[in-house]
Amino acid sequence: MSRRQFVNDPERVVPEALEGLVLAHPGLLSLHPDPAYVTRAEPATGKVALVSGGGSGHEPLHTGFVGAGMLDAAVPGAVFASPTAWQVAAATTAVDAGRGVLQIVKNYTGDVLNFRIAAELAGDEGIAVEQVLVDDDLASERPGDEGPGRRGTAAVVVVEKLCGALAEQGAGLPELARFGRDLVRDARSMGLALAAGAHPGEHAPAWELADDEVELGVGIHGERGVGRRPFASADELTADLLDRLVAALGLRRGDRVLTVVNSLGATHGLELALVNRAVHRLLGGRGVEVARGLVGPYVTSLDMAGLSITLVRADDTRLALWDAPVRTPALTW
Amino acid sequence: MSRRQFVNDPERVVPEALEGLVLAHPGLLSLHPDPAYVTRAEPATGKVALVSGGGSGHEPLHTGFVGAGMLDAAVPGAVFASPTAWQVAAATTAVDAGRGVLQIVKNYTGDVLNFRIAAELAGDEGIAVEQVLVDDDLASERPGDEGPGRRGTAAVVVVEKLCGALAEQGAGLPELARFGRDLVRDARSMGLALAAGAHPGEHAPAWELADDEVELGVGIHGERGVGRRPFASADELTADLLDRLVAALGLRRGDRVLTVVNSLGATHGLELALVNRAVHRLLGGRGVEVARGLVGPYVTSLDMAGLSITLVRADDTRLALWDAPVRTPALTW
Repeated sequence: MSRRQFVNDPERVVPEALEGLVLAHPGLLSLHPDPAYVTRAEPATGKVALVSGGGSGHEPLHTGFVGAGMLDAAVPGAVFASPTAWQVAAATTAVDAGRGVLQIVKNYTGDVLNFRIAAELAGDEGIAVEQVLVDDDLASERPGDEGPGRRGTAAVVVVEKLCGALAEQGAGLPELARFGRDLVRDARSMGLALAAGAHPGEHAPAWELADDEVELGVGIHGERGVGRRPFASADELTADLLDRLVAALGLRRGDRVLTVVNSLGATHGLELALVNRAVHRLLGGRGVEVARGLVGPYVTSLDMAGLSITLVRADDTRLALWDAPVRTPALTW
Repeated sequence: MSRRQFVNDPERVVPEALEGLVLAHPGLLSLHPDPAYVTRAEPATGKVALVSGGGSGHEPLHTGFVGAGMLDAAVPGAVFASPTAWQVAAATTAVDAGRGVLQIVKNYTGDVLNFRIAAELAGDEGIAVEQVLVDDDLASERPGDEGPGRRGTAAVVVVEKLCGALAEQGAGLPELARFGRDLVRDARSMGLALAAGAHPGEHAPAWELADDEVELGVGIHGERGVGRRPFASADELTADLLDRLVAALGLRRGDRVLTVVNSLGATHGLELALVNRAVHRLLGGRGVEVARGLVGPYVTSLDMAGLSITLVRADDTRLALWDAPVRTPALTW
């Protein structure tokens, strides 16, 4: 069976999609086409600016989280490819309002490199820049200090929301960076897939999977998982992910968490709701309270049939920041 | 390739998903489990109540549109099956606040029958009920008055939003019914698919399609389309749908429309954004203004890879109602 998509020129998918996105949200977003980045339609003043970005194909991430209470700019690369340092530097310079810029970066080699160069370029223009590196993907954890470390996945939405709210309250750049880094230490995610997604213009999924298998620990760039396990019920698959996440965070009875039950692309709302039910029941059974949660497509991997679960330790401060108003294409309350 | 889904007992998908949905939105939604319906967590007073519903598998429709500014209750049937008359009657009775109930019904035989019986049952209890029947699907239009008429699809979201806003302003039941019926006459939709979806628990899509074909005029219940056409670019496929919709509504230079670029399930945000760009360019080229628009998964057909486009004639009154505040799981501003 083919995995065809709605596409014109595969090489033009990202610029065309950016144009279509901003047309859908004229009151919220503004597009700078070259170098490409998206900012708020009404720039904020008097606060630290937040910039994020990364490869495209994960929509609504990151462009869908630009707006009051979250990001000031998002910088999209090609599908599954880092934006250039010049794109990031241009966005960083554009949104600085005199109080500096917090860059929220998912931990991938290209992103880390290009955001670092961009920070140096902006620094040369006298703009203070700090970074929060998001590395929540438990599946990519390796013993010791070897390799690039854990990948950044759906916890980035929680980091953008909470840091965004704190910036809106007037926090300074060092406080924001400290807050964000503490938050990342308390966040872990893990995903699994029932079928890979396909790149725009390609008619076959990135990889095939036997009918009785689940790909465990998939990344958001079409990477295969770290293993396979037998297909099972939504409750059993949810329990498999949760057991690992709870152990990694050392959660105990009485702890509270923010959760993200995230579609990786083609997973339907009915399925996500079933998994959210299981998350509440299984964590509740361990005495861990789901204090707040998102359920939906937030950090996708093209049209992958799969999902990820993110747990973030919550406290009163974090929950108040979570509840603060937000108005972006993908998150509004 | 399998189309497996996250599911426990296929017979329990809907009640389990309802539980998971309400857990995700505790401040917005309240679940009445038996007979099953969803209401606002904080019931409205002093206004006409709005009730909709229909088969499940179209999420976020209808449960995702319960809340201030839209529905007072949504009544979900089994996957692709009408809710029972008793479910609808119970919801209708529960949300009546003394000013009557407007039922918004998609035009399918089972829904029409069961909402009509429910209206009579509620009438027996002294509750005034009016209905707006939504029949926007151009693909199901037949010459003459034969058959069940056009099916109801994604225009129902616009009807629920605008009638919801008008009810919130204090409009009476007859005015709401008149407004809704006029609106439906000015709304048409049409969809197409690149691959069928699969029922929860089934491992194969409802039907197969050749790699070079597109199924044109698909319904939202896995019905095959009214024809096939060659696969083509996003721009060409969008133009094919738009040509038919513009002709059906008799749109002319200077007209304004509300649009819904709707994922039928597995279609990615990048693809929808491309199609939204084409909608703006193609309508703009005809002198028709896209005054407001939604782009996203609003009325899905399980995990179908496909989309629909809805056009609704707009005027100042309708646009003001569109812009009125709304707070539901799937639509908030």
